[in-house]
Amino acid sequence: MKLLDGKKVANDIKHEIAIEVKKLLDLGFKKPHLAAILVGNNGASETYVNAKVKACKKVGFDSTLIRLSSSIEENDLLDKISDINNDNNIDGLIVQLPLPDHINEKKITESISPNKDVDGFHPENLGKMVLNLPTFLPATPAGIIELLARYKITTDSKYCVVVGRSHIVGSPISILMARNGNPGNCTVTITHSRTKEIHNIIKQADILIVALGKAEFIKGNMLKKGVTIIDVGITRKKSDKTKSGWKLFGDVDFESCRDRASFITPVPGGVGPMTIAMLLKNTLLAVQRKK
Amino acid sequence: MKLLDGKKVANDIKHEIAIEVKKLLDLGFKKPHLAAILVGNNGASETYVNAKVKACKKVGFDSTLIRLSSSIEENDLLDKISDINNDNNIDGLIVQLPLPDHINEKKITESISPNKDVDGFHPENLGKMVLNLPTFLPATPAGIIELLARYKITTDSKYCVVVGRSHIVGSPISILMARNGNPGNCTVTITHSRTKEIHNIIKQADILIVALGKAEFIKGNMLKKGVTIIDVGITRKKSDKTKSGWKLFGDVDFESCRDRASFITPVPGGVGPMTIAMLLKNTLLAVQRKK
Repeated sequence: MKLLDGKKVANDIKHEIAIEVKKLLDLGFKKPHLAAILVGNNGASETYVNAKVKACKKVGFDSTLIRLSSSIEENDLLDKISDINNDNNIDGLIVQLPLPDHINEKKITESISPNKDVDGFHPENLGKMVLNLPTFLPATPAGIIELLARYKITTDSKYCVVVGRSHIVGSPISILMARNGNPGNCTVTITHSRTKEIHNIIKQADILIVALGKAEFIKGNMLKKGVTIIDVGITRKKSDKTKSGWKLFGDVDFESCRDRASFITPVPGGVGPMTIAMLLKNTLLAVQRKK
Repeated sequence: MKLLDGKKVANDIKHEIAIEVKKLLDLGFKKPHLAAILVGNNGASETYVNAKVKACKKVGFDSTLIRLSSSIEENDLLDKISDINNDNNIDGLIVQLPLPDHINEKKITESISPNKDVDGFHPENLGKMVLNLPTFLPATPAGIIELLARYKITTDSKYCVVVGRSHIVGSPISILMARNGNPGNCTVTITHSRTKEIHNIIKQADILIVALGKAEFIKGNMLKKGVTIIDVGITRKKSDKTKSGWKLFGDVDFESCRDRASFITPVPGGVGPMTIAMLLKNTLLAVQRKK
């Protein structure tokens, strides 16, 4: 078994991005600038946004964190986004999800300029992905593809099973794994809560991508020997074994699965850091496109 | 075996659309208006476009067929599209593919206003499809979904195999069959030229959607008894058995497959007419959205 060390690869990518930033500065361009909007005080969202801001600093990006009250009106949030869309000083914009119930997330996502949508959630960018056109790929699926590429894992003609059909992971990664490319060219099965005999399907996977949100759902006895496992799940549970009182769990029971797998991502330190690295890469791309 | 009679269902849909058009006229609205651009003199393209124009007439739409020389410059074509985008009198616009080699099809597709893109090929509309947002669904996949719905074929928890990963059929139909909806909720496997052991996969399908473009590729002995077959393929071959000297073939060998299937689409008269019906439905939708 070989660990797919997302933390290490993400650091490599950040290092590469930092070099590109220096090149940009040497050429007289300004630093790439990511703006993040955080509405309210959701604990997990705070953690994610802070990690993104910190990552910006590490690679030499400017970043602006815009904190807005959870009672903000939808129209005021739309106005704020419109301001940033029109601000030439800002290259990328993310709005941390989830948003409060009175705000329509889809409307917000669609209001971000596709040219600054470095999360890759805008319909236009997702559609370009389906058409295999240059675009901002959604960050988590892009991170998975990058991880497979960096570890030179053969995907061509392999059987890939995706568990979960979310708009931000399951659906797009199933398209990316099937499309004509490298990584890509997999035969892909997408499974979900309505799938029958899911165990039989999982058992056949050469590459298993799990984005379900059920802690430790995948057990070793469900796997084909030699499978490559990408664990996108992240569930926080109370624990008396950690200092913080919390422990993170993936969708994969790492201990029972590790010896069945050729490659496996840990949680934490697998897909999570890759997602942030790809967000940075998209922001750099937003700048490079303008050159 | 029951035939999925796309011709009949398409006629039903056209009848329903005609009633809606009358309602619009009674309310003082103008007729829906579809513009079609045909570049050059490709025989098959002529046939398709003429069928679309004829269908418009049948349901009471206005239509405009714009014939352009195959030597037209890309920029001139873009200008023409821009004119139509800005013409309030035209509700829907299609550009018949393929285009001559010196014209970039992707650029043309992206230049059509998403609000008039009744073929559903624009990235923004495809992305909305991935996100399950209201949109113009691409006409062929939408026709397949409609056919399954009208024949009340159960899709929930069924195993659907899609053969072919084209941007206009295979990829989008795999998303539509997997998404949370009815029809939908299938476990979906997308297969293509790089797929190994494709026969084993096809043999397990409850619903088989074939969009490969290889005449009579699917034979009866490849099927699970009771499968529902949707044949999207259409290949024209010379024949001494028809008056015209040509015969149309699907991707499915109808004779050997019919007795293995619960439901099967014929070629011609299956998915083809449904595609045109959905194009009309999208055009009506474009009008209704403006109301």
